[in-house]
Amino acid sequence: MTSSQSARVRQPIKSRMGTSTVDRIVVRDLDLVNDLLGKVDLGQMAWLEITGQLPTPSQAAVFNAVLVTLVEHGLTPNAIAARLTYLGAPEALQGAVAAGLCGMGSVFAGGSEGTVNMLLDARSKNPERSEAETAKAIVSDFMSNRKQIPGLGHHLHKPIDPRSKKLFEIAQQHGLRGKFVSLLEAIQAEAEARTSRLLPINATGAIGALCCELGLPKAAARGVAVIGRSVGLVGHLVEEAHSPIAKEIWLRAEEESSEPQE
Amino acid sequence: MTSSQSARVRQPIKSRMGTSTVDRIVVRDLDLVNDLLGKVDLGQMAWLEITGQLPTPSQAAVFNAVLVTLVEHGLTPNAIAARLTYLGAPEALQGAVAAGLCGMGSVFAGGSEGTVNMLLDARSKNPERSEAETAKAIVSDFMSNRKQIPGLGHHLHKPIDPRSKKLFEIAQQHGLRGKFVSLLEAIQAEAEARTSRLLPINATGAIGALCCELGLPKAAARGVAVIGRSVGLVGHLVEEAHSPIAKEIWLRAEEESSEPQE
Amino acid sequence: MTSSQSARVRQPIKSRMGTSTVDRIVVRDLDLVNDLLGKVDLGQMAWLEITGQLPTPSQAAVFNAVLVTLVEHGLTPNAIAARLTYLGAPEALQGAVAAGLCGMGSVFAGGSEGTVNMLLDARSKNPERSEAETAKAIVSDFMSNRKQIPGLGHHLHKPIDPRSKKLFEIAQQHGLRGKFVSLLEAIQAEAEARTSRLLPINATGAIGALCCELGLPKAAARGVAVIGRSVGLVGHLVEEAHSPIAKEIWLRAEEESSEPQE
Amino acid sequence: MTSSQSARVRQPIKSRMGTSTVDRIVVRDLDLVNDLLGKVDLGQMAWLEITGQLPTPSQAAVFNAVLVTLVEHGLTPNAIAARLTYLGAPEALQGAVAAGLCGMGSVFAGGSEGTVNMLLDARSKNPERSEAETAKAIVSDFMSNRKQIPGLGHHLHKPIDPRSKKLFEIAQQHGLRGKFVSLLEAIQAEAEARTSRLLPINATGAIGALCCELGLPKAAARGVAVIGRSVGLVGHLVEEAHSPIAKEIWLRAEEESSEPQE
Repeated sequence: MTSSQSARVRQPIKSRMGTSTVDRIVVRDLDLVNDLLGKVDLGQMAWLEITGQLPTPSQAAVFNAVLVTLVEHGLTPNAIAARLTYLGAPEALQGAVAAGLCGMGSVFAGGSEGTVNMLLDARSKNPERSEAETAKAIVSDFMSNRKQIPGLGHHLHKPIDPRSKKLFEIAQQHGLRGKFVSLLEAIQAEAEARTSRLLPINATGAIGALCCELGLPKAAARGVAVIGRSVGLVGHLVEEAHSPIAKEIWLRAEEESSEPQE
Repeated sequence: MTSSQSARVRQPIKSRMGTSTVDRIVVRDLDLVNDLLGKVDLGQMAWLEITGQLPTPSQAAVFNAVLVTLVEHGLTPNAIAARLTYLGAPEALQGAVAAGLCGMGSVFAGGSEGTVNMLLDARSKNPERSEAETAKAIVSDFMSNRKQIPGLGHHLHKPIDPRSKKLFEIAQQHGLRGKFVSLLEAIQAEAEARTSRLLPINATGAIGALCCELGLPKAAARGVAVIGRSVGLVGHLVEEAHSPIAKEIWLRAEEESSEPQE
Repeated sequence: MTSSQSARVRQPIKSRMGTSTVDRIVVRDLDLVNDLLGKVDLGQMAWLEITGQLPTPSQAAVFNAVLVTLVEHGLTPNAIAARLTYLGAPEALQGAVAAGLCGMGSVFAGGSEGTVNMLLDARSKNPERSEAETAKAIVSDFMSNRKQIPGLGHHLHKPIDPRSKKLFEIAQQHGLRGKFVSLLEAIQAEAEARTSRLLPINATGAIGALCCELGLPKAAARGVAVIGRSVGLVGHLVEEAHSPIAKEIWLRAEEESSEPQE
Repeated sequence: MTSSQSARVRQPIKSRMGTSTVDRIVVRDLDLVNDLLGKVDLGQMAWLEITGQLPTPSQAAVFNAVLVTLVEHGLTPNAIAARLTYLGAPEALQGAVAAGLCGMGSVFAGGSEGTVNMLLDARSKNPERSEAETAKAIVSDFMSNRKQIPGLGHHLHKPIDPRSKKLFEIAQQHGLRGKFVSLLEAIQAEAEARTSRLLPINATGAIGALCCELGLPKAAARGVAVIGRSVGLVGHLVEEAHSPIAKEIWLRAEEESSEPQE
């Protein structure tokens, strides 16, 4: 780099995540040992990390339900990828989880994020527009761009995704079912009417709406998916360690692929 | 591959992690919607994934404390690596978490695993030997091989690591402080006596001992570290999104490295 | 999954990348031992992998120049991320390279891809339009959307990026400087005229244009960046192994971040 | 961190990999544009990155052959893992390559490294011992520890691995077949005599021996495997982009795994 850059004004390097002294570990201004250990569960700790404050009991309940929903989806592509990685590097379980997480992109993890963006944008751009009008405008917009509406539709769970129903019930019990859930339901009704198709609010859609209700920052939508998935991937790798299937998946694919091609 | 391999007997591909039908999502033989959502927290869900069963309240309390301990350690190398990765690919937060996890290897995550192996091996190889004799044999063994005893010593938290003390107290309250914690304490006493140095049971050592008390499978020791770290890395990335420091860390290193070398 | 999915028609699993028999290893229909080893360099091998055929000498020369350009950029964020990862897991060098690659996203690797898309789209949508008109339309389009034109501009290498100049010269020598390079130069001239700013064709822009000239598939643009970077990251990790700096970068950041904040 | 650490003596942050000024990009003290572009291929560039100097023509030839050998092995576990990752995150090809690389651990990439360590240790510990005696001692040592000798044996390529034969021929032509290749051959002969089994020097063994002949640093053994594999993974992902198979591999595994279990 050049002298022009040496003249750059240095910015401070500050983080409020955590610090340690001889007898004290501080996490987001709380004392790990006295304020957190034995008092909060992993979901509450995740909330603290993301927001900087402890959740209320209601926030903790809804947030844990969101996280729990995201943990296990059976033998998904990323679970198989993690298992195949573990087959090659069993001494580095962290790399197998990392490999699985790398597949949490637009296809499987984009739904919540898209829902969050859709709902927050609608509220910020036209705060005065009625919910029904907002829903109409959103559906028209997506349909004219021939894009799928995020958070709607499921290949299997029809006409409703039971996870979404349950998540909204839990939010309701805790007074956290509000305008974002309501707007997503209005969008769903409008979309089903316009397309004459069953378009249930899927789990990622429900989670996106609840991230909005909980007031989480935008980056958190994919973050909660990543947290849930890392728990699930560790589960799959522990199973792979005692009941391996990755080698069989590999050998079958390789054998079929290697058969003479006409 | 060759004809000899085509003749291979196929193994079944089975997993007990989870399955789905139209109106039901099953995780480890439990119904996600009716048995888990709103009833278990993320720590309990992680236990279910790893062991196949729900934890008792005591197991849940100790396991959540273990996981919470692992979440946040300030600006660690892997937190910085994740932030630098996010700087280059903000559209792929999952890749930034993956990058951070890849650094959870022998240096920072090996301690719990080493402790688990040390404690389980001691118990399985010489189950009848007294605790004091076992501790002596272990310390002699490590010292004659000039290897560090896993789970002991901390550069900062001396003479005790407050996290270990608290974790053992929580285990005690829940009737889960048993022979493995006791053996680790005997090893510590022996090691301190032999070396005349302060060798506190550090947090990773305490966690290793508690993984043994909880009866978790061996692969789980690194797995819980990975789960805790993925929560912490998401926290760091959310902070990076609104209060970035990765660019400054990069520029300072690059500028210093690019100064003319004599 | 349900019975409806069991009824799914199976697709074949076929790959033409490579197969092995007892005395023969076949890569893209060529014999590794007799056709490739000792006869092709790594750049030619990469071309074979990506296109399925060996390159002509001219293609090999230009493609190797493209790849060589992408290898080393000093202490970049992803090089630092790889080094920090290696600090935590020196036994898993592959994970440190993986961590570094995860940062090859939109910010540092998006340029070539964006250039490829811009140039190919322009050619496919309006093949009859003159180059000058096409350049005008593209610049207008990006400016009205307030988006940066991919492949143009560099914070340091101004008024020209010497790598682009050299790459185009090499392409010229080999008869591979054609309409895509020409169009990019027209876009640059138009953009500089419209903005009155210096907007050199940067290295990623030049590489994008050459990927088009070479007729590589779209996915290859980011692929070549990844290949080049993996070579560079291995170089950085070998240096880190004998002249470590990651620990110092970490400690400085942690110390500054941990100073009392007013 | 504490005041005691603030008192730490700062170490310099220096790297000799590369720097840039307005009109010049320097890589390992060479000018990228004038000394490297159009003059070196990707294999030579990798050598420069790893050793800090340009290779001789003979070194370049042997090193390129080593790298080319490592590129393609058909539908391996890490190629499938990369494809499954791409299925979930096609917008982040770098993450799919990263996922594939994470599987380059002890099982598939450990062979070369183990061979390098075995050969270098033998030479450094007992430099005066004859080759035959050294080979005997090594084989005895591995057999008494019931460990596999690195670099020997192949499930398919028997009685010889044609890649090893060819690599040694290329080294011979370039005067780079020396004492390390010779020692590995002596170890093989001894091991076959002692076990009455066919134990061909496999490709990773040959590569390990050649890394020693080339005088590469220890960390380079896994590094060259990672470089070769990243080229191969990009090839697989380009094929996946136009002829996808990951979804089929996933669905078959998921369907079989989800069938009712008796």
